[in-house]
Formats: sequence, structure tokens, C-alpha cells
Amino acid sequence: MKTNDLHTPALVIDADALDHNLSTMATARPGAELRPHVKAHKCTSLAAEQVRHGHVRFTCATPRELVGMAAAGVGEDLLLANESLDPLRLRAMAAAQEHAMVTIAVDSEATIAAAAAAGIAHVLIDVNIGLPRCGCDPDDAGRLADLARRSGLTVRGTMGYEGHLMQLPDRVDQRRRTEAAIEILRRAATDVGGEIISTGGSGTHDIHGHDVEVQAGSYALMDTHYQRLQMPFRQACAVVGTVIAVRPDFAVADVGLKALGMDHGDPEIVGARVLFCSDEHVTFVPAEPLLVGDRIRVIPAHIDPTMSQHEAAWLVRGDDVLERWPIDLRGW
Amino acid sequence: MKTNDLHTPALVIDADALDHNLSTMATARPGAELRPHVKAHKCTSLAAEQVRHGHVRFTCATPRELVGMAAAGVGEDLLLANESLDPLRLRAMAAAQEHAMVTIAVDSEATIAAAAAAGIAHVLIDVNIGLPRCGCDPDDAGRLADLARRSGLTVRGTMGYEGHLMQLPDRVDQRRRTEAAIEILRRAATDVGGEIISTGGSGTHDIHGHDVEVQAGSYALMDTHYQRLQMPFRQACAVVGTVIAVRPDFAVADVGLKALGMDHGDPEIVGARVLFCSDEHVTFVPAEPLLVGDRIRVIPAHIDPTMSQHEAAWLVRGDDVLERWPIDLRGW
Repeated sequence: MKTNDLHTPALVIDADALDHNLSTMATARPGAELRPHVKAHKCTSLAAEQVRHGHVRFTCATPRELVGMAAAGVGEDLLLANESLDPLRLRAMAAAQEHAMVTIAVDSEATIAAAAAAGIAHVLIDVNIGLPRCGCDPDDAGRLADLARRSGLTVRGTMGYEGHLMQLPDRVDQRRRTEAAIEILRRAATDVGGEIISTGGSGTHDIHGHDVEVQAGSYALMDTHYQRLQMPFRQACAVVGTVIAVRPDFAVADVGLKALGMDHGDPEIVGARVLFCSDEHVTFVPAEPLLVGDRIRVIPAHIDPTMSQHEAAWLVRGDDVLERWPIDLRGW
Repeated sequence: MKTNDLHTPALVIDADALDHNLSTMATARPGAELRPHVKAHKCTSLAAEQVRHGHVRFTCATPRELVGMAAAGVGEDLLLANESLDPLRLRAMAAAQEHAMVTIAVDSEATIAAAAAAGIAHVLIDVNIGLPRCGCDPDDAGRLADLARRSGLTVRGTMGYEGHLMQLPDRVDQRRRTEAAIEILRRAATDVGGEIISTGGSGTHDIHGHDVEVQAGSYALMDTHYQRLQMPFRQACAVVGTVIAVRPDFAVADVGLKALGMDHGDPEIVGARVLFCSDEHVTFVPAEPLLVGDRIRVIPAHIDPTMSQHEAAWLVRGDDVLERWPIDLRGW
């Protein structure tokens, strides 16, 4: 099968670029120094490639991601780096403990009580280190760890997420501020105990020490926003489209905003200028004349919500289609 | 089942608001004066409600929407208001002609040839009336209609789409410019022949004459962008979330950007100020103190790509959950 045989819009993953990215990261942060985040691809086939590169601990953002990874037998140590109060979903994650070690983030009395009631064995104390989102006050981390232990939970350590620092263009400034954030987490870790300090992402993966596990996801496939930073990873994902209309001053392809994550803005088309996206169209100014029926590659601005709009991705090398990978961890 | 029993994020449709919207539109544009656009909900259960309100002709944006409507037996006359060059998908739509009248938009030699080769019986000539997207030059419409007829296709008429005028805030200006656009379409229709003139959307539904069929979709469920206009439709859709973290100056719920269409920007939460969305979180400033575990309703900025991120919607009335409606027309 050739890429021209794919029905469009078609999410494609460049096998060589993916392997470059996974190898580069596995060299920088081998084994347990990285806890790859499956939210960036939602695909157990891709996660299995990350296992082949030496990582067996994974980060998940939703219960379905975690339960799906366990059901697929991918990964030995699965972290829900997110809070859940849903008894049914917590019980499903507790049942997944038969297949993998399962750890849940907690940051409040309510989330500790919910995890304990569902039969979850392991937790991390989620600490706010600057991003206004989940995570307890750092000064409260020790108290919550004690409460978790009294509730019967094993506290494996702490986690944070310096998401507000992930895409700073000035790397000196980024390093300084990331080190300050991780210092907050390390102080909380002293109060909490346990062995794990888990934080970070693709944009800060090379700042953290080797005793920290980094929750990077975007490095595997990349997107136009991460590509603007100076990173050693290649663009590995695109949405292939068919040109369905050509006019004197623009062309239209069948890759619309329902085939893309749009929160970071319009996608890019190499050698063309994107004018706007509609539900099922992208209107653009091509660099050279196109014909109706030609194929183009649209690069998403944000990889994570692009993946969640597709049922499957196609692993390709040049014009050859190698495999179909279901995006099997969509939903919640 | 009560709304508090729903696992979040949960897409909910208010049954009474939906019925108000469908009734209001069916009064303004009864029967064949409206060709409801299923791209705005991607849900055959909702389309069946539109049939109950008297509409049996539907507009689709993707082959899967059209084939799915035919397979579900919803609608008698299905239009793909979009161009396709995909032989397999065109043949699937031709096969759907057993269950419904199927009509495809064409705007070029290539799209006419593809439709004819696949065994499609009926087409509309898609005419560009100002939006830089698909649609032929109006002066070329007659020639393409002749070509389509020579290719064995039955030309039922013309279509256009004044999408660039859909959300103009000044209704006087909108009416003037929409009438100018439809005048272009009417002139092309004279050259094309056939009985159908199909165009428009929710934002211009009350401007078009009764001889025109309007392709409105958003009116059924609405979103914050349409809600800003003076329209007789109510907000009928929300994503219910659970508050998973509360801090002194903000709260966090589990409705992230993967549960929303983000191309029109952040969603709204009634009585709160949204700060930002992450993949699986919305961070917001509530009007009054919330507790972890409380439920909130997040209103999407753009309904269409919100629907395509969910497997199902829940029809609700107050706190009662009435039905589960699969979003069964996702994908392509």
C-alpha cells in the first residue's frame, strides 16, 4: 500500500522520524528517567515502540488511557498524572493493578479518599509548582502524604508539572525558572518521602537531573509549536490531504479543523501559506501551481488534540504504508 | 439516571432547548425550505428529531456522514455539500442511493468525472459566492452543468455558501451582503438549470427567500459564538465537568480542550471566568466558592468540532438523563 492509496484526511507518522525522536530521547533520558506521556499520541502501538526504546513506566492523563495501556499489556508501571473522583473509573484502574503497577496523583482530602475507597494501592502527591492547575500547596504536601498513608495508600513520591515553562523561547530563562520550580518540588518531596520525583515535559526534558523522571509526550511526534524551539526532535506527524479545488489565487484541501487540534492556531503546509481552516477544508496559497487530486501534508499546530480526532494513524516510510495504528486510547 | 451520575466530561443536550430550536426553525423554514446540516452534530438520533420536525432533506460534509445517514434510514434526500475525488467513498455513496436520493456537489471537471465514474446519479453545481473555498467561478457554472449532463449526471441545481457572512454582527450589513451573494447564485442557477438553489446557514436562515433551501446546522445546539448574535435559538449543549481541584484564586474541572472545539477560542462557564484550557483541564475563576466534586457546565465556543471529540451525547431534562445518543457520524 502506498500513501497515495490512503483515504484523506489521513494521519501519517514518519517511521524514520519517529525512530529518530525515540532514540534521541532514550539516549538523553534512558529507561526510568523518562515516563513517556501517552496523552500526546493515545496509541498503544506507539507506546509499544517506546517500550522497545527502554521505557516501561508511562504517564496517562485519563483513566481510559491507563486502563487501555494495561489491557494492551504495554508498560509495567502506569501513572495517572491527574486527579479523579469517579468511583467507577477509579475501580477500573484498581482492577488494572492485576496487569501493571498503577499509581494515581492525589492533591486533596477528597482525591485521597476516592483513591483509597476504590482500592488503588499507590499514589503520588501532586504539588503545584507554578502552573495554575491541579497540585496542592507545596507546604501542604507532607500533611497530605501522611493522610494518604493513614488511608492505607502507599505514597511513592511527588509529582509536579511546570507546564507554564514548557515552551519558553529563551532557554537560559527557561532553565533558571525550571530549576526554581523543581526546587519547590524537591522541598515538598522531602516532606512527602518516597522514591519518585516526577515532572517536566518535552520542552524541559534536558534541564532535569537524572534522579527525576520526566513526563514527556510531544517529543515523539512533535508539532509546529514545539518545532519552533531548538530541539533535537523532528516533525514526525502530518495529516495528508487531497486538493479538491484550485482557484487562481488559492487552493483547497480536505484537511479541516476536525482533523486537527486548533487551540494553538492554524496548521502549516510546507511551501504554502495557510489562509484559514473550516470544518472539513483548509484554504491555502500554494508556492507552486497544484492540480485537483494532488496530495499535500498539513502539519498540526498541537499534536495531542489532533490525535484524538482520528481513529487511526498510518505508519509510513517515504511512499510506503507500513502499518495501521489505531488511536485506541481516545475518550475518557 | 441523573446528570450527576454521568461520567465526566459528558456532552449533554438539553431536550427542551433542542425542541425549542428545532420547532422555531421548522416554523421559520418548514419542510424542504431547510436542509439541516448534520456536520454540526454528527448524530443520527438528533437528525431523526429534525425529521420529526418535518425535514427529510439533509446536508452532509463528509462521505461517512452521508453513508451513515442512509444506513440509519434517516432522511430521504441526502446532499454531500462538498467535493470528493475518492473512488471508494464515492462508490459507497452511490451504493447509498438504494436507501435515499443522493446528490453530490461538483465544481470542476475532475469532480464531475469522479462522480460519474462512481455511479452517482445526481449533482449540484457548487458556485463560489464569496467565501474563498470550493465552488466554481459563477460564470463557469453553466459550462460545468452541461459537462455534467454530458457525463450522464442529472443536475438538480446549484449550491453556494456565504460562510464569510454567517456571523456578521450588523444585521443590516449582513442582509445587504447576503442578498448580493445570493444574487450571484441566482444568476448562475439560470445558466445551470434544475430546481434546487441550496445555500446559507443558521446565521442567514431568515434572509433567504422561500424558494431557497437553507443548509443550517448550528441552530440545533448553538454555541457561544452564535449565541452572541441576536438569534431566536437557545444554548442547548454543554460539556458537564467535575471540579477536581479548588485553590484560593481558581478552580479546575475535567473539561479540557480534547472535549471541546477550540478554533473559536476558549469555552465559557456560566457565572465564572475561564482562564485557560489544557488537554484535560479547564482552569477558571468561579463566581462563588466551589467544592471538589461539584459539577459545572462548560459551553463550547464552536459546536461542530466539539461533537466530533465525543463518542456520545446525553439527552437531559433538568437533572434527568433521558437517552444516550451516539455521535455515530464521526470521521470521514
